[in-house]
Amino acid sequence: MGLFEMESAKCHGDCHDCGHCGMELSSHDCSKLHEECGVFGIYSYDKEITVAPCVYHGLVALQHRGQESCGIAVSDMGKFSFYKDMGLVSEVFNKQKLDELKGQIAIGHVRYSTAGGSVAENCQPLVMRYVKGTLGFAHNGNLTNAYELRNELEQRGAIFQTTIDSEVIAYLVARERPNTHKVELAVRRAMQQLHGAYSLLVMSPRKLIAARDPKGFRPLCMGRIGNDIVFASETCALDAVGAQFMRDVDPGEIITCDENGIHSDRTLCKGTAAHCVFEYIYFARTDSVIDGVSVYESRRQAGRQLAKQKPVKADIVIGVPESGIDAAIGYAEESGIPYAKGIVKNSYIGRTFIKPDQSQRTNAVRLKLNALESIVRGRRVVMLDDSIVRGTTMQRIVNMLREAGASEVHVRISSPAFRNPCFYGVDIPSRDDLIANQHTIEEIAKIIEADSLDFLDLDSIVKLTCGKNLSLCTACFDGRYPDGITSHHMNKEDEIL
Amino acid sequence: MGLFEMESAKCHGDCHDCGHCGMELSSHDCSKLHEECGVFGIYSYDKEITVAPCVYHGLVALQHRGQESCGIAVSDMGKFSFYKDMGLVSEVFNKQKLDELKGQIAIGHVRYSTAGGSVAENCQPLVMRYVKGTLGFAHNGNLTNAYELRNELEQRGAIFQTTIDSEVIAYLVARERPNTHKVELAVRRAMQQLHGAYSLLVMSPRKLIAARDPKGFRPLCMGRIGNDIVFASETCALDAVGAQFMRDVDPGEIITCDENGIHSDRTLCKGTAAHCVFEYIYFARTDSVIDGVSVYESRRQAGRQLAKQKPVKADIVIGVPESGIDAAIGYAEESGIPYAKGIVKNSYIGRTFIKPDQSQRTNAVRLKLNALESIVRGRRVVMLDDSIVRGTTMQRIVNMLREAGASEVHVRISSPAFRNPCFYGVDIPSRDDLIANQHTIEEIAKIIEADSLDFLDLDSIVKLTCGKNLSLCTACFDGRYPDGITSHHMNKEDEIL
Amino acid sequence: MGLFEMESAKCHGDCHDCGHCGMELSSHDCSKLHEECGVFGIYSYDKEITVAPCVYHGLVALQHRGQESCGIAVSDMGKFSFYKDMGLVSEVFNKQKLDELKGQIAIGHVRYSTAGGSVAENCQPLVMRYVKGTLGFAHNGNLTNAYELRNELEQRGAIFQTTIDSEVIAYLVARERPNTHKVELAVRRAMQQLHGAYSLLVMSPRKLIAARDPKGFRPLCMGRIGNDIVFASETCALDAVGAQFMRDVDPGEIITCDENGIHSDRTLCKGTAAHCVFEYIYFARTDSVIDGVSVYESRRQAGRQLAKQKPVKADIVIGVPESGIDAAIGYAEESGIPYAKGIVKNSYIGRTFIKPDQSQRTNAVRLKLNALESIVRGRRVVMLDDSIVRGTTMQRIVNMLREAGASEVHVRISSPAFRNPCFYGVDIPSRDDLIANQHTIEEIAKIIEADSLDFLDLDSIVKLTCGKNLSLCTACFDGRYPDGITSHHMNKEDEIL
Amino acid sequence: MGLFEMESAKCHGDCHDCGHCGMELSSHDCSKLHEECGVFGIYSYDKEITVAPCVYHGLVALQHRGQESCGIAVSDMGKFSFYKDMGLVSEVFNKQKLDELKGQIAIGHVRYSTAGGSVAENCQPLVMRYVKGTLGFAHNGNLTNAYELRNELEQRGAIFQTTIDSEVIAYLVARERPNTHKVELAVRRAMQQLHGAYSLLVMSPRKLIAARDPKGFRPLCMGRIGNDIVFASETCALDAVGAQFMRDVDPGEIITCDENGIHSDRTLCKGTAAHCVFEYIYFARTDSVIDGVSVYESRRQAGRQLAKQKPVKADIVIGVPESGIDAAIGYAEESGIPYAKGIVKNSYIGRTFIKPDQSQRTNAVRLKLNALESIVRGRRVVMLDDSIVRGTTMQRIVNMLREAGASEVHVRISSPAFRNPCFYGVDIPSRDDLIANQHTIEEIAKIIEADSLDFLDLDSIVKLTCGKNLSLCTACFDGRYPDGITSHHMNKEDEIL
Repeated sequence: MGLFEMESAKCHGDCHDCGHCGMELSSHDCSKLHEECGVFGIYSYDKEITVAPCVYHGLVALQHRGQESCGIAVSDMGKFSFYKDMGLVSEVFNKQKLDELKGQIAIGHVRYSTAGGSVAENCQPLVMRYVKGTLGFAHNGNLTNAYELRNELEQRGAIFQTTIDSEVIAYLVARERPNTHKVELAVRRAMQQLHGAYSLLVMSPRKLIAARDPKGFRPLCMGRIGNDIVFASETCALDAVGAQFMRDVDPGEIITCDENGIHSDRTLCKGTAAHCVFEYIYFARTDSVIDGVSVYESRRQAGRQLAKQKPVKADIVIGVPESGIDAAIGYAEESGIPYAKGIVKNSYIGRTFIKPDQSQRTNAVRLKLNALESIVRGRRVVMLDDSIVRGTTMQRIVNMLREAGASEVHVRISSPAFRNPCFYGVDIPSRDDLIANQHTIEEIAKIIEADSLDFLDLDSIVKLTCGKNLSLCTACFDGRYPDGITSHHMNKEDEIL
Repeated sequence: MGLFEMESAKCHGDCHDCGHCGMELSSHDCSKLHEECGVFGIYSYDKEITVAPCVYHGLVALQHRGQESCGIAVSDMGKFSFYKDMGLVSEVFNKQKLDELKGQIAIGHVRYSTAGGSVAENCQPLVMRYVKGTLGFAHNGNLTNAYELRNELEQRGAIFQTTIDSEVIAYLVARERPNTHKVELAVRRAMQQLHGAYSLLVMSPRKLIAARDPKGFRPLCMGRIGNDIVFASETCALDAVGAQFMRDVDPGEIITCDENGIHSDRTLCKGTAAHCVFEYIYFARTDSVIDGVSVYESRRQAGRQLAKQKPVKADIVIGVPESGIDAAIGYAEESGIPYAKGIVKNSYIGRTFIKPDQSQRTNAVRLKLNALESIVRGRRVVMLDDSIVRGTTMQRIVNMLREAGASEVHVRISSPAFRNPCFYGVDIPSRDDLIANQHTIEEIAKIIEADSLDFLDLDSIVKLTCGKNLSLCTACFDGRYPDGITSHHMNKEDEIL
Repeated sequence: MGLFEMESAKCHGDCHDCGHCGMELSSHDCSKLHEECGVFGIYSYDKEITVAPCVYHGLVALQHRGQESCGIAVSDMGKFSFYKDMGLVSEVFNKQKLDELKGQIAIGHVRYSTAGGSVAENCQPLVMRYVKGTLGFAHNGNLTNAYELRNELEQRGAIFQTTIDSEVIAYLVARERPNTHKVELAVRRAMQQLHGAYSLLVMSPRKLIAARDPKGFRPLCMGRIGNDIVFASETCALDAVGAQFMRDVDPGEIITCDENGIHSDRTLCKGTAAHCVFEYIYFARTDSVIDGVSVYESRRQAGRQLAKQKPVKADIVIGVPESGIDAAIGYAEESGIPYAKGIVKNSYIGRTFIKPDQSQRTNAVRLKLNALESIVRGRRVVMLDDSIVRGTTMQRIVNMLREAGASEVHVRISSPAFRNPCFYGVDIPSRDDLIANQHTIEEIAKIIEADSLDFLDLDSIVKLTCGKNLSLCTACFDGRYPDGITSHHMNKEDEIL
Repeated sequence: MGLFEMESAKCHGDCHDCGHCGMELSSHDCSKLHEECGVFGIYSYDKEITVAPCVYHGLVALQHRGQESCGIAVSDMGKFSFYKDMGLVSEVFNKQKLDELKGQIAIGHVRYSTAGGSVAENCQPLVMRYVKGTLGFAHNGNLTNAYELRNELEQRGAIFQTTIDSEVIAYLVARERPNTHKVELAVRRAMQQLHGAYSLLVMSPRKLIAARDPKGFRPLCMGRIGNDIVFASETCALDAVGAQFMRDVDPGEIITCDENGIHSDRTLCKGTAAHCVFEYIYFARTDSVIDGVSVYESRRQAGRQLAKQKPVKADIVIGVPESGIDAAIGYAEESGIPYAKGIVKNSYIGRTFIKPDQSQRTNAVRLKLNALESIVRGRRVVMLDDSIVRGTTMQRIVNMLREAGASEVHVRISSPAFRNPCFYGVDIPSRDDLIANQHTIEEIAKIIEADSLDFLDLDSIVKLTCGKNLSLCTACFDGRYPDGITSHHMNKEDEIL
């Protein structure tokens, strides 16, 4: 819908339709966090090739990062074409549309699924014409000074047709471009004005530029298919298109691909990184490797760590599919308690699913998840999940296990408790809606009707990096925002948007 | 599709799919001219009412002015919502989408049907946020200095996401707004920089502004439903929504509706008007009254005039549906030759119709139009139509009449011959494709295989105003562009876009 | 929807959505009658050709006979394929679907638009497998003994999956086939058991059979494209596909096309014909010629006759588009009062149009039709239309003319008044809903607020055949059912279905 | 598409588009078997309730049994409505369509996804009218004497509009009904003529009847929601709608629900059962319990058994998602080798996914599945899957593991090797296409490039019933068809259809 309607699309505690499970949820019911995007880009040195199908397959591999909308922009020897719309990659694109997107350079984008009406204006990539020609932008992340930048740009006559940060970045690049002899320098100058999180792909008629904010909040990696260069939010997309992983784009780095080859600008590579810990805990696909750490290993380690710190006598270890499975495997390994499949997920429940209403004798969780009675009946169960946001869904799952005959249900969460908002691209409900801000662990255990409940210790979070000693952003757990931002500051933005 | 792809959407002589008849046409086959838009706006003083359904019905009444895309933007006490997409009004909007567009002020737009892929970015209204809040724009027409204005704005850092003139106008208004204490003054200052044709609706959170360029190229009228004020491209839309016609917006006039009432700013009302003559000849709906002249009367007068100037001995007068019917009635009246329905149109041939290919033993014209053999067999026929662009379709129609048994076919065109491009919003093919630039009338008659052919005299065009002595733009016939523009100037723009 | 739901689709006086105008109508508001179908078939002697595109174009030309659903079945050297669905021909078929329908023999069908849910099961052609192979059926008309035949067949173990008469015909042919050495003989034997109206196309793996009931209620004609044979409900479909008219199929005749040529079986050609007069008055396309009579001429004659019998002093003659136009031209010719276009129709109002609700200050008729004030203001108007069913729409049209300034409005109807139901395929409301059964002509004039009202005399109906002396069915006007059926009999069927 | 086109929809070795993975597959590439259907029915004693939403949710839980088409039929105090179409349950039904299906008795159906065009005629439930009123049919299974029954029915005048067995069953019930005083007796008499596999739901205006063939090939169970009775193909659908499992319908049993309660007819309950073993191995959802045996336990046992019989030295046990996971867990338990997630599936690859073409440097398997390098690199891997049909997909998976660094790949299949066709509702490729008929195990190991390969012993298949001593149909493995049918017999049918 419209410009101001877009705001209601943000899922700050009043999400009515969860993109993860396709269910309409009443307030305080949204059990999962949302992230905003995935990006994919390719630069081909083969002028005969058309790269749109490769981007398509890359985006399908990144679909878990965003189900709301998607788009692809291509440059065919300088001539831009693009197509974007609301929906999954396989819904938005068909053979004919892909065929129309001829070109050797391309960027693509998936955006996360939100509530409310159509916000087609916010689809990416953003393609714009400016004084020096045409540029395309796709980014993942969230600027923390978007409000100030918009204000300043508007003072100078800018008009905004979307609410996405890409439009702000595009203006900054357009403003800096006349003063620079290369577009990548304009990108660098623009980046010097940006605060917050962004993994950015910029396509000019003859170049593909990949950049990552100096903290490296969001992932971005580089691979190669033959001579051609590919960028993606996660390595799973490289695997999908048959690309070989080269390396991660470094925090602050700007990599430019053009006919002269690949050039890296490390001017902005300074300071400590702050990689989002939640990529490991929940967002990323388990088969991805981010900044050198396997996501699967990270999750398994969390499970092992929990088994050490929060042991419990039980007969079986199970995980809530899909995100709790890996930690459950780790917990089982460490504890010696057998791993079992205790809960099954129905994979046919998507966006158009009609949820049961009040009059019906079932609930949405039961349609999505089912307990295996033969496994849980009469047994003491340890159940792993990645997080608890509000607690409602967890309470229903615990109940389902009890109805299936579990004699005890012990819940272990493979991350610390959420207490703070995220300003870098994760939609965490407001502080008041976070159950961990309102209740002690014991109280939460009672609310969700579990026999015991425990979270991963904040101190153990370093274990998630599997010995790689990565510098992580853990602000959602401990409130230490790596760029010193305060939530007071951010609230101002909320008032406006 | 994309930004640069949009240009191929313009129908300058290589139109492959005619929005008027739904047929794929090879080069030089496009028998009709296209105009670009229709606009509709409403300001309600009743805060309880929601005006989107009224705009919907107004746009359906203006659908003949544009079948490519449409949109509606509303302001609900300052909160904007909008929806726009490719397709007919009845395809794009359904009950649910209308219901979501709550508000007391609204503007709507229909855009004409063109060839090629989706150009969703160019849909109107354009809604944008700027330093002073939010504005919506819908316009009909074509700026002749859009290229220069874009250039200048880009020099100052502007970025463009569409190729529509509304975006240029929006930038100018945004630039002027800080220096003015009312948005309508910013609109006036912006208009002082615009050249060419525009009938413009601007919606601010609390105001509806209607403006018309100082030449009044494109129509715009004002009506009233109770206390509420309505603006529309044509009076037929006022009739459809039950509004009473008040008056036309004058060339150069800016009318502002807000809670204090209606205010007219006539500062820019100077100079001679130049109303597009083709609105009377072809574009407008026959039941509309534009600038005081009934479209139907105008067309009937053209027929009467032709009967006086270009008489012919014949048994019946027929018209090519729908646009030649009115002139045929006038020709019959004046000549005394009986009017008859000699050709029937199939109204079920729309945008998705699959045309016959080479292997089939029929042609697209025969599917669309059919001759009544009982009427034409053995008779001398005078056939009226509004215009000849390239001649191909006309040749097929004449042939169809002969196959149905007409002993003679005399073609009379109710306008002079096209010889020049239009820079004010009509898509006339390039000079080389206009049959009248390549051949004498006698040659054309031979090409279309007519026994005789005649056009309305250029001198008689004044008759189209039915004695109202309107000042008309007739540049497409005589090359006298009312604002002194030259086609040399305009070609420059074509190079860029 | 379902089997029993189908019945609600019939438009006996409670039609809520008129296929003719796309408007939702409350009871007693349906201003037009509905017929049930159009058929088209082709037999090609060229084994290389694929005929589905020809059927597609033929059906588009017959679309006015049915907008609810459509379908095409083909035989490719004995291998059947078919596709059918709800919607217009151009909505149901696309290039790919046509391409999949390979074959040299084909039949197609359009069905009329009704209220209510989807009745996909009732789409035609009906393709069925029986003891001797496969057959396809498409028909237009209504059996008067369908109830008895279904009963008898059910007694013998038949099951019915639709409510269409084609299924009954298919069973009868299947039952007779083992006793006959040719499928066309089985068709003849089946026809000997059928009462009522049907124009029927039957496709066997190697033959195309066309048959018409012995009364010839519904039209059916034959044409030729090169050597190939085409059958269609109306000649306008022959014209559309470039076929040459050969002759009408005679009442009772069975024509079989196979590799040996064309064979006519006239065994059942006996008794007096009873061609439906309403084909001339309203159903057929004005450019068709049915049983030797031009539909346009027939309508023009009705207008001339009215001018003689029901003259009135007036300034202009106008017609309600589209069905009243032809009669208006005839009335003008005979009376000498000038013909003018007094009402214009918006052709963009289709099935998905959202009608205005109570709260809006307009009505559906005003969106569909508009009066030309410049024509009617201050003038005495004679307005022609083809029929009055309930009177509601006519009252709104008269009102619209008065609001546009008409000083007098005289309504002339180019048919006698409806008083009786039709059992042969026309959906006429129940007797109680027919305004002519409840009121005198004077009363109706008052109800519709006309200055005068007149119908065509029952005695003049013969004029509609333009001197061809056709034998017509006029039961809807005079209650004389040509096959002696009584409405008492038919009501029994209504109870069941 | 059409009647004879339907046959190409069967997946006998030339499946071009696999419903399981959404990929277009060349011949011999279809790696999974297909089953034909799932059924769900409900009888409510509450006359105020509408049961369609319950059926909707039940069908979503059974969606894995068929993705091609679905449908729901309801009886509202005897008035039938139904809706069915091609597509997933959540695609075919929306809120409005469900709301239109009012009723207290309902049956629903899902059908499996096949190649080729639309075969809308074959959607179930089948609703038909016969001499005693109306009936609805939904069934899962395959009759082995359908050909003979059709022949015999056609001899007596039957016509067939579909190729589904439901139509044959409907005819038999219709034929028997006049000789019986209750519809359930007609169902019994019909069943006495049926050979092969069927789990059947029949809805009459006031009754719901559930029946299972005397061998009990396909599953069918009964549950209760309050007083209301529910039938479903699997218990997972009972769980989804909040129903309590009561018991399985016994082989040969006919259960009738009406206002007098529930009645069981066990007349046909005799002889040995022959439950399809492949329900346990692959078809059923892992959380279902079929004929007293947990599907998950059955699969885990298969894994344990393999570990005992076919041990191998390895570092980790992994499963091919989803069907190999359960056996992998069992293998790990028994062998003591740690279970790990070695392969991840992209769950966003559905029916509309565009597969890569030859020119692209990836393959469809890589888009669907990805190996976790951190898990498999340098390790000896045992990989479990449920079956090998042709071997092509397995070869790609093994390769993928090697590219990810696996030092050894040992494949263990949790079922014996396929050697024979199934005549009871499973689409097994022809004998020649089954890799196990062409090659020894050692040869297959080489073809798929595995270090070792082993299948579950035929003798161990009894272990799948977890000690319940169920009588199983294992014909696909050992060729012993429980009803003595021969493939010679069945080929005759293939010739016809």
